[in-house]
Amino acid sequence: MIRNSGEFTRSWSFGSMALVTLASCLIGGQWSLPTARADEGMWLFNALPTAHLKSEYGFTPTKEWADHVMLSSVRFNSGGSASFVSSTGLVLTNHHVGAGTLHKLSSADHNYYRDGFYAKKHSDELKAPDLELNQLVSIEDVTQAVTSAVKPGMTPAKASAARRAVMANIEKESTEKTGLRSDIVTLFGGARFHLYRYKKYTDVRLVWSPESGIAFFGGDADNFEYPRYCLDVCIFRVYEDGKPAKIDNFFKISKNGAAEDEVVFVSGNPGRTRRIYTTSALKFQRDHRMPYVLNFLRRREILFQQFGLEGGEQARRSKDELFGLQNSRKAYTGMLKGLQDSTFINSKSVAESKLRKIVQDDPKLKPLAGAWDEITEIQSDRLALLGQTGGFASRYFEIADTLVMMAEEDQKPSSERLREYRDSARESLMVGLLSPAPIYDDIDRVKFADSISLLIERRGGDHPLVVEVLGGKDPDTVATEILARTTLGDIKVRKRLAEGGKAAVDASADPMIGLAKLMEHESRRLRTLNDELAERERQAYAKIADALFAVQGDSNYPDATFTLRLAFGPVKKYALNGETIPAMTNLGGAYAHASKHGNKGDWELPKRWRERKGKIDPFTPFNFVCTADIIGGNSGSPVLNRKAELVGVIFDGNIQSLTADYFYSDKVSRAVSVHSSAVLEALRNVYDAGQLADELGK
Amino acid sequence: MIRNSGEFTRSWSFGSMALVTLASCLIGGQWSLPTARADEGMWLFNALPTAHLKSEYGFTPTKEWADHVMLSSVRFNSGGSASFVSSTGLVLTNHHVGAGTLHKLSSADHNYYRDGFYAKKHSDELKAPDLELNQLVSIEDVTQAVTSAVKPGMTPAKASAARRAVMANIEKESTEKTGLRSDIVTLFGGARFHLYRYKKYTDVRLVWSPESGIAFFGGDADNFEYPRYCLDVCIFRVYEDGKPAKIDNFFKISKNGAAEDEVVFVSGNPGRTRRIYTTSALKFQRDHRMPYVLNFLRRREILFQQFGLEGGEQARRSKDELFGLQNSRKAYTGMLKGLQDSTFINSKSVAESKLRKIVQDDPKLKPLAGAWDEITEIQSDRLALLGQTGGFASRYFEIADTLVMMAEEDQKPSSERLREYRDSARESLMVGLLSPAPIYDDIDRVKFADSISLLIERRGGDHPLVVEVLGGKDPDTVATEILARTTLGDIKVRKRLAEGGKAAVDASADPMIGLAKLMEHESRRLRTLNDELAERERQAYAKIADALFAVQGDSNYPDATFTLRLAFGPVKKYALNGETIPAMTNLGGAYAHASKHGNKGDWELPKRWRERKGKIDPFTPFNFVCTADIIGGNSGSPVLNRKAELVGVIFDGNIQSLTADYFYSDKVSRAVSVHSSAVLEALRNVYDAGQLADELGK
Repeated sequence: MIRNSGEFTRSWSFGSMALVTLASCLIGGQWSLPTARADEGMWLFNALPTAHLKSEYGFTPTKEWADHVMLSSVRFNSGGSASFVSSTGLVLTNHHVGAGTLHKLSSADHNYYRDGFYAKKHSDELKAPDLELNQLVSIEDVTQAVTSAVKPGMTPAKASAARRAVMANIEKESTEKTGLRSDIVTLFGGARFHLYRYKKYTDVRLVWSPESGIAFFGGDADNFEYPRYCLDVCIFRVYEDGKPAKIDNFFKISKNGAAEDEVVFVSGNPGRTRRIYTTSALKFQRDHRMPYVLNFLRRREILFQQFGLEGGEQARRSKDELFGLQNSRKAYTGMLKGLQDSTFINSKSVAESKLRKIVQDDPKLKPLAGAWDEITEIQSDRLALLGQTGGFASRYFEIADTLVMMAEEDQKPSSERLREYRDSARESLMVGLLSPAPIYDDIDRVKFADSISLLIERRGGDHPLVVEVLGGKDPDTVATEILARTTLGDIKVRKRLAEGGKAAVDASADPMIGLAKLMEHESRRLRTLNDELAERERQAYAKIADALFAVQGDSNYPDATFTLRLAFGPVKKYALNGETIPAMTNLGGAYAHASKHGNKGDWELPKRWRERKGKIDPFTPFNFVCTADIIGGNSGSPVLNRKAELVGVIFDGNIQSLTADYFYSDKVSRAVSVHSSAVLEALRNVYDAGQLADELGK
Repeated sequence: MIRNSGEFTRSWSFGSMALVTLASCLIGGQWSLPTARADEGMWLFNALPTAHLKSEYGFTPTKEWADHVMLSSVRFNSGGSASFVSSTGLVLTNHHVGAGTLHKLSSADHNYYRDGFYAKKHSDELKAPDLELNQLVSIEDVTQAVTSAVKPGMTPAKASAARRAVMANIEKESTEKTGLRSDIVTLFGGARFHLYRYKKYTDVRLVWSPESGIAFFGGDADNFEYPRYCLDVCIFRVYEDGKPAKIDNFFKISKNGAAEDEVVFVSGNPGRTRRIYTTSALKFQRDHRMPYVLNFLRRREILFQQFGLEGGEQARRSKDELFGLQNSRKAYTGMLKGLQDSTFINSKSVAESKLRKIVQDDPKLKPLAGAWDEITEIQSDRLALLGQTGGFASRYFEIADTLVMMAEEDQKPSSERLREYRDSARESLMVGLLSPAPIYDDIDRVKFADSISLLIERRGGDHPLVVEVLGGKDPDTVATEILARTTLGDIKVRKRLAEGGKAAVDASADPMIGLAKLMEHESRRLRTLNDELAERERQAYAKIADALFAVQGDSNYPDATFTLRLAFGPVKKYALNGETIPAMTNLGGAYAHASKHGNKGDWELPKRWRERKGKIDPFTPFNFVCTADIIGGNSGSPVLNRKAELVGVIFDGNIQSLTADYFYSDKVSRAVSVHSSAVLEALRNVYDAGQLADELGK
């Protein structure tokens, strides 16, 4: 299941972990940055590959088409994609994108994640505690303004500060002028900067969700596999001023949905790819970062499994994070597998040598020639920082950390602050900080204690920071004592500390605030080191991108940045080990698949599905695959036909596609979608939600 | 569950992984080596703590008592303990000690591990494919002969070779003279050497086993917990010349079994403790080795879980190893927890400083003073080798490796060979090599491929050895191709290669033999480095032991060595978080415990137990705890009363006891046993095996 977003390095916030997928295998003699081939590419909406679309599919996206698709697309700020599907504010996304909210709305008495939900009237719709949805409204190229802030000879730290300041000012001005969320996006590894403006929706309510048993049918075993039979969708509605929002741009629903061999378009927010990476950067991933991340993921997976064994309620509470961990572990395993295949890095290396030779031999390009060695050096510095954090895996610690950092950052002018503490980001920050979502002390304690253990493992038990954190005790005791005394569970306390600023935070006797203060120096030290590395990396990759622009021209797509992109490709079967894997499955197949696995465990269809077996048309298409170039973050993306009608919803990539982080292939790699017809059929004949089905597309 | 034995470092043979448990918490002002306190101690049978037993319990073990207990005790060479319980060769051990054999005897059609087994007549008993049972017959102190072989000024390599040679000669002479298996055991970290002679039994047959559902009732969640309700026993019979062996020394069964507050004796083979370890050695464990081992265990646990998801037969095939991994993971987690508690290492460090000062200040002891720094230096060298192996996790690779190494080693005189290839060890080696136990290619492939991946992770993808192993392919492909072509599954092929020696092995075109040859150099290099470290460590710890002998006298017990030891202590309740944990549970409690967990999953009692509920006496004692000092390897140990009657069978330690590797406490640490009355009641009234019950103790 393709999930996304955030940074893995903030290991204590893995609820929004960098999760990444898609599209695999052999690449030919390409450069470091791929020359887009076949249906490769996650294209910017202001630079669509019109020539390729025309020559390959006889299709020319007009400005109106592109604007309509852009404005009808939705980003879940929590890490996913979606779309408007009615004038009345309905938003269609994946069940697994909505899962965090489903869990937050659930309790020991109502398990909406497991049992599903349907609000027949507006007043029954449930307000999500902390969702922010973004609608991309405009894109503006601000490369010139941003890059001119960095003067030759500046140290990385100076360059980074200068760039940060000019970006903050541009964002601030834009927000003040338009009232829109304004983010500058760094593209092509730092060679281009675009300003994205979003309309924000923060009153988001749950309308309908199926049971997790059909949304995630087949569970961890079937995850990333194909053929599949998952109704991985759910429906929210955005509100404005307490009323359903009136939406001008939304997708109509195709009458028949996706058809085999038809070209389809995916409009969504791929989280992160690393296709510009040099050989040395890929080797660092292969030999260090991925093994580290996998060890971490397995550690947490076992921790959550063990916690869930304690009882039914514990299992419910840990479900969402456990699923995220299993999903990430499977995805990273696939990615590492790709990197461990020597043919890949070898071919990458050959292509890189060719490009470096061209750069070396061309006097105009020669100033760019040092970039590859600089990237190599950066990897050693990255290795030294691997797994070092200044934080702990506790929701309470996150809150305390945010309060402590915010109090300190707010002493500076907005443009000099760390990015997430700037005025322009304050509203989004406060949505998270003051979220009424439940925090479960039992699970928080287990995570917190484990992350203290991890700190000991990473630093050694004699490290001064470790000694100070432990205070002569053991991790369990430290975690238990702090959680027993913290009052940050109370939203009013958080609000008071946030509003009281530095004076209030300094005066706080809360032990978790105390711990966050104790960690602040280390946290900032690591942040500075990481930011410096990122700046050096940005400068080096910008040079490599410039070299590629010079050699290939600049009509290419940049690596994914969790911003809106268009991907495309036909609905297409594939061959694997001599077998033909069909492009589509149907609803009847789900029953056969359940039966093949003894109707047990993750293959037991929900009661409602067993009861309605006779009522639904078994030939209704259920899931389908296409060659579109997608990755984690694309989850929930609308799949469209030429008429921009919705024909499906992306929810996964097959296992062969897990190396899409580094390279695209359309041989056996496929994006997996829920077919629009299955959504309509299920709403009408399984969930008795014909009224909702009728509202879709209207 | 306390399991044992073998070396973790041979990561490809984790079927017999170092697994370790027991007895916890606060120690007082003791030295590096504990002064035995209260009921601490795993005592040598030739140096029992008679004074303590007399003063504390008014009990004096006579020579006859000790000899009878020794001769009635049995070691499972695969890593566990047991006892003779009839003149007709019956051997009682844990279900989890027999589990490996139960799995080997099972197939897709007969799952004896899950469903249990009962042979009503001798001809129905099932022969274990590769079990070797050892009965300790005599102990002889050969310290003088061994240590005199090492001359002052010898390098560690020379010293090690000299010692190896003299030990091999002593063992060889003993075997030739007595016909008995003869092993020299290194005690007190290398300060003492004793020759152990064993009678071997290699025709071992399964008589009775309960279902895994009652043997391991509560599964991974209940493992290492208490109160417990597990019938973790099974019964084998040893044969000689095709007939049930006639056994002179065996335990009678106590009429009432263990009673609360009664002192009991545990005669078994604790695998390994590290109580002599210095602070620096413990810190290495805490900061490096344990985190590494836990990462490895979690990696394999997830791998086997994923494999088991593929289907029922896959789940059956992976069950035994998965269980071992989960058990180890839980045990190591507990051990690391103890080491991460700063109070422990601090108090150890204080005691160590005191001892070092005494040594430093005493001219006679001063030559020993360098030992602690030497141990510190050894830790850095250990760190460099951590996780490096010359092997792969594949049963086929193990076979190939054994054949390749044996062919080469056999070129030398027996006394110069690596220990496991000496003539005296040949019979045991061949039992394993030619075992007809099934090898499952599917699971072997998954493990093999994963361990190739691990090699890449440990060495880096550009390491020449990695490049050579991969040969331009990826780990999956390499594993698949080699397994498709190897013929080592055929026992005749193994036999031919073993008998053909170096010429046959050199001529073999088998790809797995080829891989073992490719790895041989690296494997030997690592072996040499590890042996040198072990020798340096042995010399340093021998000095520390000598210092302790000088300060404390030498009436202490040595660290565990998977040889027969006597432990003891009362059957005793304990207090935990203000609650009293009773010393005993009863059969009725098992039904209540099942019901409390919804009679589901690992808490579903086997059908037979549900059906016979009315037939059994619910007040029959089921499990009980005592303070005896035990650890992994003690699994299956007989628990005896003063009359040397069997009152129970050790099967676990509680979670508080998991730090027994490093220190003993009797405050809340407890050894957990199956009560003898439960065994009799179950045989009679659940398994309709009254005949077998009647045979016990006769």
